[in-house]
Amino acid sequence: EGSTRSFVCPYHGWTYDLEGKLRAARYLPENVDRSAYGLKRIHVQLVHGMIFINFSDNPSSLSTLQSDLDECLKPYGFERAKVAHREHYPINANWKLMVENYIECYHCAPAHREYSRSHSRQAPEAKAAGLKAAMIARAEAVGLSRKSIDCFGSSSSQSGEQYFYDRYPLYPGYKTGSEDGGPVAPLMGEIKDYDGGAADFQVGPVTYFLAYPDHTVVYRFLPQDIQETDCEVVWLVNENAEEGKDYDIDRLTWLWRVTTEADKAIVDRNQQGVNSRYYEPGPYSQMERFVIQYVEWYLNRLRSEGA
Amino acid sequence: EGSTRSFVCPYHGWTYDLEGKLRAARYLPENVDRSAYGLKRIHVQLVHGMIFINFSDNPSSLSTLQSDLDECLKPYGFERAKVAHREHYPINANWKLMVENYIECYHCAPAHREYSRSHSRQAPEAKAAGLKAAMIARAEAVGLSRKSIDCFGSSSSQSGEQYFYDRYPLYPGYKTGSEDGGPVAPLMGEIKDYDGGAADFQVGPVTYFLAYPDHTVVYRFLPQDIQETDCEVVWLVNENAEEGKDYDIDRLTWLWRVTTEADKAIVDRNQQGVNSRYYEPGPYSQMERFVIQYVEWYLNRLRSEGA
Amino acid sequence: EGSTRSFVCPYHGWTYDLEGKLRAARYLPENVDRSAYGLKRIHVQLVHGMIFINFSDNPSSLSTLQSDLDECLKPYGFERAKVAHREHYPINANWKLMVENYIECYHCAPAHREYSRSHSRQAPEAKAAGLKAAMIARAEAVGLSRKSIDCFGSSSSQSGEQYFYDRYPLYPGYKTGSEDGGPVAPLMGEIKDYDGGAADFQVGPVTYFLAYPDHTVVYRFLPQDIQETDCEVVWLVNENAEEGKDYDIDRLTWLWRVTTEADKAIVDRNQQGVNSRYYEPGPYSQMERFVIQYVEWYLNRLRSEGA
Repeated sequence: EGSTRSFVCPYHGWTYDLEGKLRAARYLPENVDRSAYGLKRIHVQLVHGMIFINFSDNPSSLSTLQSDLDECLKPYGFERAKVAHREHYPINANWKLMVENYIECYHCAPAHREYSRSHSRQAPEAKAAGLKAAMIARAEAVGLSRKSIDCFGSSSSQSGEQYFYDRYPLYPGYKTGSEDGGPVAPLMGEIKDYDGGAADFQVGPVTYFLAYPDHTVVYRFLPQDIQETDCEVVWLVNENAEEGKDYDIDRLTWLWRVTTEADKAIVDRNQQGVNSRYYEPGPYSQMERFVIQYVEWYLNRLRSEGA
Repeated sequence: EGSTRSFVCPYHGWTYDLEGKLRAARYLPENVDRSAYGLKRIHVQLVHGMIFINFSDNPSSLSTLQSDLDECLKPYGFERAKVAHREHYPINANWKLMVENYIECYHCAPAHREYSRSHSRQAPEAKAAGLKAAMIARAEAVGLSRKSIDCFGSSSSQSGEQYFYDRYPLYPGYKTGSEDGGPVAPLMGEIKDYDGGAADFQVGPVTYFLAYPDHTVVYRFLPQDIQETDCEVVWLVNENAEEGKDYDIDRLTWLWRVTTEADKAIVDRNQQGVNSRYYEPGPYSQMERFVIQYVEWYLNRLRSEGA
Repeated sequence: EGSTRSFVCPYHGWTYDLEGKLRAARYLPENVDRSAYGLKRIHVQLVHGMIFINFSDNPSSLSTLQSDLDECLKPYGFERAKVAHREHYPINANWKLMVENYIECYHCAPAHREYSRSHSRQAPEAKAAGLKAAMIARAEAVGLSRKSIDCFGSSSSQSGEQYFYDRYPLYPGYKTGSEDGGPVAPLMGEIKDYDGGAADFQVGPVTYFLAYPDHTVVYRFLPQDIQETDCEVVWLVNENAEEGKDYDIDRLTWLWRVTTEADKAIVDRNQQGVNSRYYEPGPYSQMERFVIQYVEWYLNRLRSEGA
């Protein structure tokens, strides 16, 4: 974060330019080839102004993802969005237990009352269908895409890229993911009004988004150790929104704070269960198809990495 | 703790009845055999109202122990006793170092002045014999058993069960294990008066008791990691005793708090010594026969488990 | 620390005399040979009143070191010096990263402004030579040795002992290693006045000293775990100096507190860098010859221990 003309190592003062080339290193013997000691190169790709880092030597390109998601993401104006808040939840569990928790909503009804009373993800099919048709009409009217893209898991995407976008309705009375259903920030990007919906979307295997008309929540699941995961949550708002005037951090972050705290409690205990000598995996329910796909995709990746 | 008609998993809401059978699991595919997904069964046995859990697939029965200890434990009324207080001491040592500490009183004189000035466990034999004869007469008069049972360690018990009961005298002036020698709670169970004695008893290899006429202290040594043990201490009193009126937590718990804190300090440092590259075991004294027996029993168990 | 006629184990009361012989052990069977259970013997050597402990079974003698350093250390009166303060810095890094940090001053200019503005270790050669000649003249006048000894690293010392002594000038205006350049304690030992210099010296591979006319700072690097090191810093002053009257702890310790805190920050992050999958060692600068020698010495020791 910030702006600089060079990077200086605080240890011995070696100085690198913005390309990562070593520009100055005091008392280095003449015969040392300075061009061999630049900063390491890492693959990055921009998706609507967000920087995605890939540590693989041979990363997939995200180009299919970008063209496919373009129409969906454009209205939110992510290139210009402002980071309103950032929270780290240390999870005492393997990262995959946390991702599996995120991608299934089988646990939403028993574990997330706050979410379930406002979001229709779990509604009976007939009811959901009616709500959805109405929301799609409104979404188009306010400038949001009606497209739904499911390239989740290994079998879905030609290029092997994993991504997903789906907009689904909130229950009547809810304009956004807030405690009272009312707006918590100015409308994002080019969105003209509330459509009564929320978008779930995903870029790659460990980054997930929840996009409302007035704010977007970003989840990153970062493995720290075998049974330790950093769950980072970032709240994005309109670039012109001012804290205290246009939004209040507590109101803005309420829903996904209480939901993430509940998930932490569940997943920490899930890890304890998995560690028990009595643990054996149970069957998946019909609401956990994403978990099944994710595990398949992951096993395929491990197999192909090993090959 | 508490009372319920069913157990509900806080993650996905699967519901089990009091027998552990899976009664409800939403959206589970029809072909899943629900009877295969009940709660795990663990062997438990009741001894005078106390639940003993055994994680072995083939646990010993405790039946010899129960009939042998019945007459000794009955007067205390454990089935109805009240948990007055519970304390956890995290020990930075292997569980076996903590058990070995508990079962030898060679360290009582140098390390536990509070215990040693009131309890005659360590008294010279001649003095102890006189005190004991007098106490036994009083014990019978107040309704306590005069029986002494030593099935400690592998060689003692036919059934392989490990248990022990022995009542021994407090020094004159001490009615119970308290700071000033005076009572700290109403008499337990059916006991009619103070006999000036205390009982040491044991059920299995990691649970130990100290029973006074007015309260009983329970020690549980629970391994948490190779060098981490939870020492749980529970204080039991008469079921009708009321805190603040009939007993005061600080007075009730004083002796075994100061004694356990001293033991924690000793045992934590003992583990540090054992971890030293200079460590070599020393000889046992004549007051450590229980440790010798325990180690023999444990090695025999390891050998037979491995066979 | 302190004074005693015997050592008593707080566990079972075994008592040892000041030679480490077991003098008393209650209830030990008659046939136990008490002479076999004395305290363990460890090799120690005194260097000007400082006790050096060597855990090797076959320690080098320090005799060459002692005769070589005698003239240099004598003036400071270490035999009588007083410990004014002691600080422990827990370093989240391997001990060798911390030693390497200590023995190179390539990082002093970028990382230690407080040190660099007063100490000429890093001054351009021509400037340093002039300052040094003037300081040596003053050093001899105030009773300090002009000797410089470099037995650092494997190739330097006949006996394999590793030691070093070098006195170098402070910049004009600095009498000692203090924030304002003024004295922070009475002169040590037999030193008659300030010579405007500071001595770096070393006894063995993990103990380093900074000696000013009015105080000496001792660094000990004690490995606790693979990536955990205790950096102990001890401040020595004249035996007659009184806290509050002759010295103030904050003023006395200021320079090496801020410097050690900066080093901790650097070295902790250095370890994080070394742990990265992208880590590869870089070339040494011309100011890091001690690190090169140290690594050579260490590798030779590992090879000879393994043989």
